[in-house]
Amino acid sequence: MSQTAQPPVTRSDANTAALENLFAVEPRLVGVAPAIDAVAGMRRDLILTSGPSLPFPAYTGGQRDGLLGAAIYEGFATDRAGAERAFERGEVTVAGCQTLGVVGSLAGVTTASMPVLVVEDPHTGARAYCTLYEGDTADRLNYGTYTDATRVNLDFLRDRVGPALDRAVHSHGGVPLKPIIQRALTMGDELHSRNTAATTLFTRALLPAITKTNGDDAGTLADYLSGGDYFFLRLAMAAAKVMADGMRGFGGSSLVTSMAFSCKEFGIQVAGLGDSWICGPLPTFESVRLYPGFTESDIEFMGGESVITEVVGLGGVAQAAALPLQRSSGGNAATMIARTVQMYQICAGEHPDLRIPALDYRGTPVGFDVHRIAATGIAPYLDIGIAGVGGGQIGGGVARAPLEPFLRAAEELTHLTKERNA
Amino acid sequence: MSQTAQPPVTRSDANTAALENLFAVEPRLVGVAPAIDAVAGMRRDLILTSGPSLPFPAYTGGQRDGLLGAAIYEGFATDRAGAERAFERGEVTVAGCQTLGVVGSLAGVTTASMPVLVVEDPHTGARAYCTLYEGDTADRLNYGTYTDATRVNLDFLRDRVGPALDRAVHSHGGVPLKPIIQRALTMGDELHSRNTAATTLFTRALLPAITKTNGDDAGTLADYLSGGDYFFLRLAMAAAKVMADGMRGFGGSSLVTSMAFSCKEFGIQVAGLGDSWICGPLPTFESVRLYPGFTESDIEFMGGESVITEVVGLGGVAQAAALPLQRSSGGNAATMIARTVQMYQICAGEHPDLRIPALDYRGTPVGFDVHRIAATGIAPYLDIGIAGVGGGQIGGGVARAPLEPFLRAAEELTHLTKERNA
Repeated sequence: MSQTAQPPVTRSDANTAALENLFAVEPRLVGVAPAIDAVAGMRRDLILTSGPSLPFPAYTGGQRDGLLGAAIYEGFATDRAGAERAFERGEVTVAGCQTLGVVGSLAGVTTASMPVLVVEDPHTGARAYCTLYEGDTADRLNYGTYTDATRVNLDFLRDRVGPALDRAVHSHGGVPLKPIIQRALTMGDELHSRNTAATTLFTRALLPAITKTNGDDAGTLADYLSGGDYFFLRLAMAAAKVMADGMRGFGGSSLVTSMAFSCKEFGIQVAGLGDSWICGPLPTFESVRLYPGFTESDIEFMGGESVITEVVGLGGVAQAAALPLQRSSGGNAATMIARTVQMYQICAGEHPDLRIPALDYRGTPVGFDVHRIAATGIAPYLDIGIAGVGGGQIGGGVARAPLEPFLRAAEELTHLTKERNA
Repeated sequence: MSQTAQPPVTRSDANTAALENLFAVEPRLVGVAPAIDAVAGMRRDLILTSGPSLPFPAYTGGQRDGLLGAAIYEGFATDRAGAERAFERGEVTVAGCQTLGVVGSLAGVTTASMPVLVVEDPHTGARAYCTLYEGDTADRLNYGTYTDATRVNLDFLRDRVGPALDRAVHSHGGVPLKPIIQRALTMGDELHSRNTAATTLFTRALLPAITKTNGDDAGTLADYLSGGDYFFLRLAMAAAKVMADGMRGFGGSSLVTSMAFSCKEFGIQVAGLGDSWICGPLPTFESVRLYPGFTESDIEFMGGESVITEVVGLGGVAQAAALPLQRSSGGNAATMIARTVQMYQICAGEHPDLRIPALDYRGTPVGFDVHRIAATGIAPYLDIGIAGVGGGQIGGGVARAPLEPFLRAAEELTHLTKERNA
């Protein structure tokens, strides 16, 4: 058996190479700029949103509300009816965030004027982008709510927070994100549903730069960065997108390079299958913790691309690092540890830099292998924020990705391999 | 049995009341001031140091070196020989830190001009004090090293950091410490050997105030607070001292109200035995991690009062909250969790506010009961920094307190009870 000739590139080799490329990425925040300036291909009349692209009429509920609000915010209409007409007439168009290297949180609505975090891998120049956290307010466009308060807050992010953060980041010479992510994993974060440590570590890292900026900027950033615990999620997402993109282009690899969902469907991309989305039904919850007064019938899927964190060994696969989440997503310490342990069965590797103290510093499971998922029937865990019917966040939970797209991708890969070998 | 008359105050009642009083303390940083101004009873010619007071000649090694350096720093001499003469002639005197409500880190050398953190319980006005973290430098007086670099650093703390921090704290209206401690316990800290989360949380809490101070102060604080992870230990110690003092005055209580050691001996105080120290031999290490190049023969005890954190349910008894410490103190996740679980056997209660995610948010074990320790033969765990022969930190480790003083205290309490009942 040991003398059997091997084909030049096996699936295992391709997966290993893809993971090595992911591990080599050193994501760095290099600036904050309006999407129109930062994102190649962005247009004034384009609105991005979470999930594989759909035609406008397919967007319903909170995700549709978010798109309509965005069209009003960008001046294409003054009310909902006008905004719907603008989409129908093609005066404004919609596309999935990841068509342009953006990742969207929840509905993920991203317009030309919105400031985006620009994250770059200095080794390759590869970039990814994500909008800024809207704060602890109930009036958040990414949770499907567009009110006067939403607009005022978006203006504040565009006119004050974005420029101030950009100046501080430049004065600091950029901010390396992997050391913060690495450290936060030892401090109760899994960098998806929990970003408390990463947000505070980022703030402290930037503190000398903040104190050197002008007084107005310093005050703005002090209030914004000390006002909540979720700021870093957007950085974790953009960093994860750059890392995940490192796995692209490895023909024959069965590793998942992206995951995302809209209000209608959940999609994955796989290294060996190029950039096409393979879609299936929405995720299902295994455990939820809803805010008082809400029930599971209030849950609405409005899209989400923060599941890019799971693709690179964070979030739902790293729950053993974030035991405090038992209070906001359900479960206890033992179940959270067991979830991470299960994920090793469907992942091709363990992250050499991102490690979990509760598992004696074992690396996080990383690299969803569609063949392993097909063989075991085990779907990836996803830690996700939960939106409610009518808008706003109503809780958090632990979901499972649907098995279907992984099974289909495994079949397609097998088919491709047979064709090549025929 | 249920009809048996009870004496008005049982030991159990006294212990419960003592713990309730500890739980009610809300430690708050209210300012930073030179010890001579802040600490009642402080004198220009007094130098405080860790552990039950000893006559000057009894201090040896690094603790003696620290005292001599302090005497030179305060101008009582210009060299070691002169400093020794100053102590011998009584021109300068030495006393245990806790005689004045101060707690000392390692050698704990505290002089009149040094700035101290002033921590107060607003309900009672009770206060405790601790000097400022000297930074990551090798030249630290509290590790027995006095060089030009030590002096320059102490000057900087006295002239710049202390006053800047005092202004920021006042501008902020004081800083409540219990919420930070509570949160840090969910982020990998046990608040003795690990204070990374608490230091960053404190920094972020103070950020708005820092940006409002003048530019010089802001820069000084930004550099000082973002330059290391141990700043908060001194706050945790002063907060623990105020909390632990809440247990004093409960006659009949068998709970430990303080622990401290010098280079010569380890002492405890017990609620039912007043303010006298009951002493025994120095702690022994169960697990150590030394910096490269050092062996266990290099370890030197130079004193330490940071074990006040263990008295209030932090540090060695809360290792299950600080799994990252396995890298700096030894052990693995399972042994660290087992250590906390064992401590419940010798503690009278569980802290209602300070809870551990890895134990499904069970409260930390709190209130060492000398009778339980005597009955089980289990001594308290202590997470301590390790000093080396010749000065400087050489590592960290997990130690056990000596059993002797707890056994003796249990005997004395039993004797007292018999006398009262006779």
